Amino acid sequence: MRRITILGLEGFPLVKEGDDIAATIVDVARRNGVGIEDGDVIVVSQKVVSKAEGRVVDLNDVEPSEEAESIAKLTEKDPRFVELVLRESRRVLKVDPHSLVVEDNRGFTYINSGIDKSNVEGPTRYCLLPEDPDESALRIAERITQLTGRRVGVVVSDTSARPFRRGLVNFAIGLAYLDPFRDYRGQEDLFGYVLRVKRVAVADEIAAAAELVIGQGREKVPVAIIRGLRISASKHSARELAVPREEDLFRGLP
Amino acid sequence: MRRITILGLEGFPLVKEGDDIAATIVDVARRNGVGIEDGDVIVVSQKVVSKAEGRVVDLNDVEPSEEAESIAKLTEKDPRFVELVLRESRRVLKVDPHSLVVEDNRGFTYINSGIDKSNVEGPTRYCLLPEDPDESALRIAERITQLTGRRVGVVVSDTSARPFRRGLVNFAIGLAYLDPFRDYRGQEDLFGYVLRVKRVAVADEIAAAAELVIGQGREKVPVAIIRGLRISASKHSARELAVPREEDLFRGLP
Repeated sequence: MRRITILGLEGFPLVKEGDDIAATIVDVARRNGVGIEDGDVIVVSQKVVSKAEGRVVDLNDVEPSEEAESIAKLTEKDPRFVELVLRESRRVLKVDPHSLVVEDNRGFTYINSGIDKSNVEGPTRYCLLPEDPDESALRIAERITQLTGRRVGVVVSDTSARPFRRGLVNFAIGLAYLDPFRDYRGQEDLFGYVLRVKRVAVADEIAAAAELVIGQGREKVPVAIIRGLRISASKHSARELAVPREEDLFRGLP
Repeated sequence: MRRITILGLEGFPLVKEGDDIAATIVDVARRNGVGIEDGDVIVVSQKVVSKAEGRVVDLNDVEPSEEAESIAKLTEKDPRFVELVLRESRRVLKVDPHSLVVEDNRGFTYINSGIDKSNVEGPTRYCLLPEDPDESALRIAERITQLTGRRVGVVVSDTSARPFRRGLVNFAIGLAYLDPFRDYRGQEDLFGYVLRVKRVAVADEIAAAAELVIGQGREKVPVAIIRGLRISASKHSARELAVPREEDLFRGLP
């Protein structure tokens, strides 16, 4: 029988700029009595990664551009917030009083470029996504290996809205030592028919699974260990998960 | 420390119309040495539910309508297949050579109404989604309780494509004894700020987690048990997860 365990690490301290997240993970995993094992996939919430990387901005330090001012009027948002969204995005896809949808600098389609207020101290301070979440994941993975001698995969995850369905789910926005896909194409099914379009986004499913223990409020569980998966030796990027708009089968729905 | 276990039940027999899926689950769980426990959430792939419910159709028994014929030309699909898609949908949202997107009879936005060929025997036979997946989930949950005395939650899941991101993921399309959401609205974050839009779609995250052990090919693991979650006494529906197009923040992207 296949068994995968999701471990939510409790007692994670508040993270501040410059903190060594990997060392904290190793320490908290030890104090939780589970340690780090070879092949573990460590899912780390974007927020703690961003905080450690100093990606928190105070709106009082932001000077909005003219474009930000005009989008702010249409969206009923603070122009300084809109300015941050624009800086973090390549392309504005939708502007209306309910939502500001962009393609962000990493290629992901996001409301507000993933910029968020929750669990950030101070009334005008907001958290941006890590500049390069794959790079963040790689740094954490290699530092954990350095500290423990264990080979691990890492996913940097963010909980966000998606089309068609209510509620947020957790997605992979950065990864290291993990193939984001399980590829069935060319394999046969139970009756010998060749599977054509079956490529499963396991990195997103891993992020979603982790969120079941992570939580979004005061839980203080920003990291989960997923034990029982297969990690990868080859180089991958969470950006492989982003579909360019031109190739998106759902593009242009009314 | 929070711990959730995902158990992939191996040795599940091929399912045919009329089979008692719940009894099979109980039997296979016992043979896998894990049994069924109070509070388990059982995730069941749509395909085995549909097969047991006789939702497999042979294209040779389908007479395409004129609308199906004309959409078949535009999408380069078999008109009998398109006829099935139309019967299973309320509204056609997109027709082009690459995709046929609809709002299905249950309210979910789907490519091809979720109709699929994989792991269905016979070259012209296709599997439809369960007619009422919530009802299917409820029947399975109550029958498992009847057989074991254990209270369980059930999710009927389907692996499907989504906008913006490559690869399929597993979603909840039916559920019983499980609240599809974990609601943070009105709660405070670590620094006392009230969380406004945080409602997490845990039912979809549970389905995604289950897929990590279920697999889409010849694995013969159509059922997973998720142990360590909280189930619900009140009545819910997976249809709560469907956002009407009018309310979808991502609606109308170019």
